[in-house]
Amino acid sequence: MAHRSPIKALAFDVFGTVVDWRSGIARDAAPVLARLHRSDIDPHAFADGWRKRYQPALEEVRSGRRAFVVLDTLHREALEDLLRHHAIDPGEFDEETLVHLTHAWHRLDPWADSVEGLTRLKTCYPVVTLSNGNIALMLAMARRAQLPWDAILGAEVSGVYKPLPESYRATARMLAVEPAELCLVAAHHSDLAAARAAGLQTAYVDRPQEYGGRPAPDASAAQDWDFSVASLTQLADELCR
Amino acid sequence: MAHRSPIKALAFDVFGTVVDWRSGIARDAAPVLARLHRSDIDPHAFADGWRKRYQPALEEVRSGRRAFVVLDTLHREALEDLLRHHAIDPGEFDEETLVHLTHAWHRLDPWADSVEGLTRLKTCYPVVTLSNGNIALMLAMARRAQLPWDAILGAEVSGVYKPLPESYRATARMLAVEPAELCLVAAHHSDLAAARAAGLQTAYVDRPQEYGGRPAPDASAAQDWDFSVASLTQLADELCR
Repeated sequence: MAHRSPIKALAFDVFGTVVDWRSGIARDAAPVLARLHRSDIDPHAFADGWRKRYQPALEEVRSGRRAFVVLDTLHREALEDLLRHHAIDPGEFDEETLVHLTHAWHRLDPWADSVEGLTRLKTCYPVVTLSNGNIALMLAMARRAQLPWDAILGAEVSGVYKPLPESYRATARMLAVEPAELCLVAAHHSDLAAARAAGLQTAYVDRPQEYGGRPAPDASAAQDWDFSVASLTQLADELCR
Repeated sequence: MAHRSPIKALAFDVFGTVVDWRSGIARDAAPVLARLHRSDIDPHAFADGWRKRYQPALEEVRSGRRAFVVLDTLHREALEDLLRHHAIDPGEFDEETLVHLTHAWHRLDPWADSVEGLTRLKTCYPVVTLSNGNIALMLAMARRAQLPWDAILGAEVSGVYKPLPESYRATARMLAVEPAELCLVAAHHSDLAAARAAGLQTAYVDRPQEYGGRPAPDASAAQDWDFSVASLTQLADELCR
């Protein structure tokens, strides 16, 4: 710890770390499910099902079996798969409705501390996204939620999905800093573990409501991270002294 | 004109359009030249010589003869070439001094109307960079000059230098808009002509002081652009009604 490099930039995971994807997706899925008279499908469970479906799709790209496609495309495919899982034919919807629902991922609300925390952290360090979300998604989300990013980096810019090591290293390179001078801020131990293995510093933000109060699927991957906080405002307290 | 697509985003050329490269480079070169007792070299002419030298270097990359390298690297090479042209051995300097001088391109001041203009335009449209400058350069410049970009796009993100058509089209694609829904804002007719040929809308900003009051090298490439303004605040007047 005594020999930790000075931090020169902060890179943020976004879904779950900065914004509450589960509530946002449930909010926007609810009226669609209601119109279909599908009160048997809980909108939060629908959100969980959607989120769960995109990891295998990401893995197809990470493995090289599929050429890079943006997350908006994977979200759309996962949505259609999820609808079929619930015996709903995606063809029942017009294209505009499917696009609008897919773009629910653009309309996620920040956690209560995110905007203030990022705004304060930005006064000390460049703050950039290091998300698997694509540029148009991150930009629309940031404009709606007032997230003051200095730059939108991440999968579409590096051409590599997390948690491949190159996703973290390419981000450091684009910022013209060493991996050890870049700190990943994330609510997910698996993401932080991969970032650490790639040479980055790590800041864990606890988001106990990400899964509606249930434990995170990667809870067992916890390590002793360089920083561990309960909010982005607390991270600003620690880093911007 | 009646059938113009609605604009969905604004992409900005930066050097000369948003910031005053000539004054900034001259300001930072002056003390270096003074330390060398080279009062025979006018700092503004030094800036012109530096700027002029990077176009052939860009052409090497655009032509495919050289793999993509970021503008910081080309600026450094052009600086060493310029110093030698003035019979100054770059080896006379320590590395830190050469890096600091190369990074004068990160420390350019905005034109008087740029920050207010961009801030107002951002309330109506996403505002992104479409510059040949690399991400680290654009980010450092934006933080210093308070340029409120929604995203830093351009050469390093698309992997293509302007004015190749793909540089404009890739930017539209990353924003998930059609080329005709993206408007390039630039002080350079050559840039706007290439953007128009790629299908973008075009907004010309007159920057009569870019070359210290002398005519721009591409003055003869003027066309009847979709918008033509004297400042970014005037562009906000026209676009944000």
